[in-house]
Amino acid sequence: MGSKEGFIGIDLGGTSIKIGVISNEGQLINHVEVPTRTQDGYQAIISDIITNSKNLIEQVNLTMENIKGMGLGLPGMLDIEEGIVTFAPNLSWRNVPVKSLLEGKLRIPIKLDNDANVAVLGEAWVGAGKGYKHIVMSTIGTGIGSGIIINGEILHGKNGMAAELGHIPISEEGAQCGCGSNDCLETISSATGIIRRGKEIVQAGKSSILTKEYADKVEQITAKSIIDAAKLGDKEALQVVNNAGKLLGRGLAIVANLFDPEIIIIGGGVSHAGEIIFKPIKDEFNRKGLNNIVESVEIVPAILGNQAGMIGAAKLFN
Amino acid sequence: MGSKEGFIGIDLGGTSIKIGVISNEGQLINHVEVPTRTQDGYQAIISDIITNSKNLIEQVNLTMENIKGMGLGLPGMLDIEEGIVTFAPNLSWRNVPVKSLLEGKLRIPIKLDNDANVAVLGEAWVGAGKGYKHIVMSTIGTGIGSGIIINGEILHGKNGMAAELGHIPISEEGAQCGCGSNDCLETISSATGIIRRGKEIVQAGKSSILTKEYADKVEQITAKSIIDAAKLGDKEALQVVNNAGKLLGRGLAIVANLFDPEIIIIGGGVSHAGEIIFKPIKDEFNRKGLNNIVESVEIVPAILGNQAGMIGAAKLFN
Repeated sequence: MGSKEGFIGIDLGGTSIKIGVISNEGQLINHVEVPTRTQDGYQAIISDIITNSKNLIEQVNLTMENIKGMGLGLPGMLDIEEGIVTFAPNLSWRNVPVKSLLEGKLRIPIKLDNDANVAVLGEAWVGAGKGYKHIVMSTIGTGIGSGIIINGEILHGKNGMAAELGHIPISEEGAQCGCGSNDCLETISSATGIIRRGKEIVQAGKSSILTKEYADKVEQITAKSIIDAAKLGDKEALQVVNNAGKLLGRGLAIVANLFDPEIIIIGGGVSHAGEIIFKPIKDEFNRKGLNNIVESVEIVPAILGNQAGMIGAAKLFN
Repeated sequence: MGSKEGFIGIDLGGTSIKIGVISNEGQLINHVEVPTRTQDGYQAIISDIITNSKNLIEQVNLTMENIKGMGLGLPGMLDIEEGIVTFAPNLSWRNVPVKSLLEGKLRIPIKLDNDANVAVLGEAWVGAGKGYKHIVMSTIGTGIGSGIIINGEILHGKNGMAAELGHIPISEEGAQCGCGSNDCLETISSATGIIRRGKEIVQAGKSSILTKEYADKVEQITAKSIIDAAKLGDKEALQVVNNAGKLLGRGLAIVANLFDPEIIIIGGGVSHAGEIIFKPIKDEFNRKGLNNIVESVEIVPAILGNQAGMIGAAKLFN
């Protein structure tokens, strides 16, 4: 670490805590991933963050005095000003004063933001969005997360609830969404949506690779297995993947017509499927977006993978 | 005009030019409306703006020295920085350097923005959005215009094309939109969309007040006549109005899920229909918006009417 100073960036998820030391230039110097001990309460998680952060900076011959701040990206609803996690179901947290807990122990500035927001900040800093000021990022995983940057600033909205691309009501299937509504984009285009549709193929006994492979173990079907079947030309699987891409493309056309971004970044597991998902996304995007917008915006894959959260969390200090 | 100074705010439309003198507090002191002489070229329009503005300020015993700036709201694509109207089909303008033309003659600062953007600025200043910082406004007229304010700032996007709520692809009817796409919200929920559906009722000879009244003059059908028939309980007309409201409500749910605004303002001719349009809007909005957002946002009618553009154009200077 050339400049002998930097930031700690933390991606705190329901499964693991990723802790990184980030340089002033957004390079990930050193990092560690530990399981999230949700069952032991927030105290255990805060304690794990402190211990592992201290170890990590020691490993690169830094001390806490060299660290200009610690940023955290978390899944859930936050009071960003006060640094409180008001509700994070994945962590079983309610009203946890993360900022004051960590500042009290570490004596460095602490900032929080939503996990999707820090991911787009990371990509904007040193990833696929570098050099752009109007960025939409959508992460296709279990759900559909998204973060939006306008004029270089994260869009938060009144309650910090902005950018809920996954909950655009867009399907006509009537599938129930976790949010309580139905027909949300993520009921179709997330990994969960793709798996749901894949299971229906198997359960209906349709002629498909999936039916052959998963007839007696439908619960084990994954988004990857469905995408792989589609890549082999399996008609049923292809239809599921095409539809997931198509509705995501339509959702992105809506977002583009509303935000007029420079670039749209697609991340998350499903985005690794490549052209089989990007083609239907782009086709529908081009059909449904306004001409002037479609012509001026690029749709690109994310490039920081699961480092985006750590790096972007550090960027909360710029 | 108490303070002996103020602004000129201009709402330049394809039919008329509305010119107002606006106080520092956003009050419309004096105003005039003249026809837009599009057929005579941009020079005629610029000249009419200059002449009428001078007359107007004289009438309130002011001189150009008392005017801190002139703001204009226009329909079309703009280069806001340079003050150039790049393309305005309603005015038959291409690359008209409005800012330099007017500054050269009037020697006061000139600013331009999109008509929908100045309308929301006006409502935010002294109208239905007063006191709010996160505002969505949708104007239901011939098309659906919209303007969005985030943290007190107008959302422009990369090309100044942001906030195209009317072009959310949302219907499944396949109706062609002026933008070249189909299924755009404004094919259903604008006055034009309502009229199109009303004509279909008459042309299909369905049992309806509209068929009786417009059988031999279907071209004369208006959105108001359809809304009036709906208010009398006409089943066919009611379905058209309900559907227009429902899809607008769904569009607003999408916008709310993406922007998390404090308030949504509905303006334009159709909004004067009252509960018959607001009820289906709100019902669908509540069904499709995220709970936390639906609970925290208000949907209200605009209150400045056709003064919003003049007032908001003056607000470009704050």
